[in-house]
Amino acid sequence: DNKNLPTIYIITPTYSRLVQKAELTRLTYTLKLVQCIHWIVVEDSTIKTQLVKRLLAKSNLKYTHLNVLTPPEYKLGISEKRWRKPRGVLQRNEGLRWLRSNKKLILSGSEGGVVYFADDDNTYDVQLFDEMRSTKKVSVWPVGFVGKLRYESPIVGDGRVVDWFTYSKSNRTFATDMAGFAVNADLMINSKVEFSVKSSRGMQENDFLVKLKITLNDLEPKADLCTKVLVWHTQTMEPNVKNEELLMKFGKSGSNLNIEI
Amino acid sequence: DNKNLPTIYIITPTYSRLVQKAELTRLTYTLKLVQCIHWIVVEDSTIKTQLVKRLLAKSNLKYTHLNVLTPPEYKLGISEKRWRKPRGVLQRNEGLRWLRSNKKLILSGSEGGVVYFADDDNTYDVQLFDEMRSTKKVSVWPVGFVGKLRYESPIVGDGRVVDWFTYSKSNRTFATDMAGFAVNADLMINSKVEFSVKSSRGMQENDFLVKLKITLNDLEPKADLCTKVLVWHTQTMEPNVKNEELLMKFGKSGSNLNIEI
Repeated sequence: DNKNLPTIYIITPTYSRLVQKAELTRLTYTLKLVQCIHWIVVEDSTIKTQLVKRLLAKSNLKYTHLNVLTPPEYKLGISEKRWRKPRGVLQRNEGLRWLRSNKKLILSGSEGGVVYFADDDNTYDVQLFDEMRSTKKVSVWPVGFVGKLRYESPIVGDGRVVDWFTYSKSNRTFATDMAGFAVNADLMINSKVEFSVKSSRGMQENDFLVKLKITLNDLEPKADLCTKVLVWHTQTMEPNVKNEELLMKFGKSGSNLNIEI
Repeated sequence: DNKNLPTIYIITPTYSRLVQKAELTRLTYTLKLVQCIHWIVVEDSTIKTQLVKRLLAKSNLKYTHLNVLTPPEYKLGISEKRWRKPRGVLQRNEGLRWLRSNKKLILSGSEGGVVYFADDDNTYDVQLFDEMRSTKKVSVWPVGFVGKLRYESPIVGDGRVVDWFTYSKSNRTFATDMAGFAVNADLMINSKVEFSVKSSRGMQENDFLVKLKITLNDLEPKADLCTKVLVWHTQTMEPNVKNEELLMKFGKSGSNLNIEI
């Protein structure tokens, strides 16, 4: 690591599912190619799981492992396919809480820092991290595969963000995705801003940035003035494992095969 | 790269789709963490696309870029959701053809080599490559998320493969997935074996290994005697981009935003 670079604090909410280990494995490999990062992984769980513990210990990355459970009332209603409340809210806030409680440690580094919220299923071009590293207040850039478009993006005029390219801007001042912005660590730590479980669907990012008291004019457009997609909101299918049930039914078993996936 | 290691020749068929760049990007990052590999990327295309050309050039990996089009008659029938014929057949064979036509170059390395077929959507633990590097004939290991199970695997007894853990073995001698085996480079290059478009669904791997004239007893079980999953057959959802059409309909456009995703 080059000690003269600002540190990027990457807050990643994660939760238990069949593809969790695979997803975290490839994200780890991306992050291993980035200098000066500190990965804050926050499990949606009552405990820190062995799976994530082992994966982080093996990664050789600088990391902090946290956990906080999303209460059931925030989750899936009985007849709903998706959560009522946005996912990862409490986990991102837990990451922010840790940053603020380690304020002295973090801000004593003369090179400053940046905070980024990186979900564990997105795909990141390593160039993205070099782009965000110089963030003075809040930097922004295009994100692939959001809003039912190939990408959403800030619209840039004269080197400044003047509007947002999105299908439905609604009443958002900041029509960006969670993966589409980073915040200067001083600004983030010294503010008391959190994500809110009361934000409506799709309003999380906007509400957060509004509370940070920044303006459109403060935004720093990155990725060659928002002409490159360097992060994609990829989604991995939950694997079909319906034959597991049939195996159990017929009493078939894999003898030596009780493998953690 | 440690010059005393056998080289792993990784043959990856790929085809144009919305998530291609994202998928190849994260696969590239995984491969950058592996020593002594030679990545043979074979596009299902009449040309070598700029997207793949640029991505490979930027990767700093040792690579060979090939292309061969799968003829339309091998592809999706009008009323079928999936291809009639297995995907990637001609592309893997093109990779093998290249290896055989560079036989002298490859086999002159005293350390030998290994050939592995790595699709661009799977997730690989880098340890997998260390496991396969010592392959004398054919090595095998478990694969996650195949056969509608959490994993399929060779069943090992006394250090040898004695059977296969799978829901439906059918009449396969070798009930492994494409991601579940590697072949010694000498054996691969000196044989004339190819994949066949005539193989039935799910029989590609078996038919290929049968033609290689190996026996169950020849197989080398890796990944701690097949007790670890080090590769997962993850599948990335094709993104929903239905708002693209609506944008066109209403003549909305993103001004500065004609971005390659």
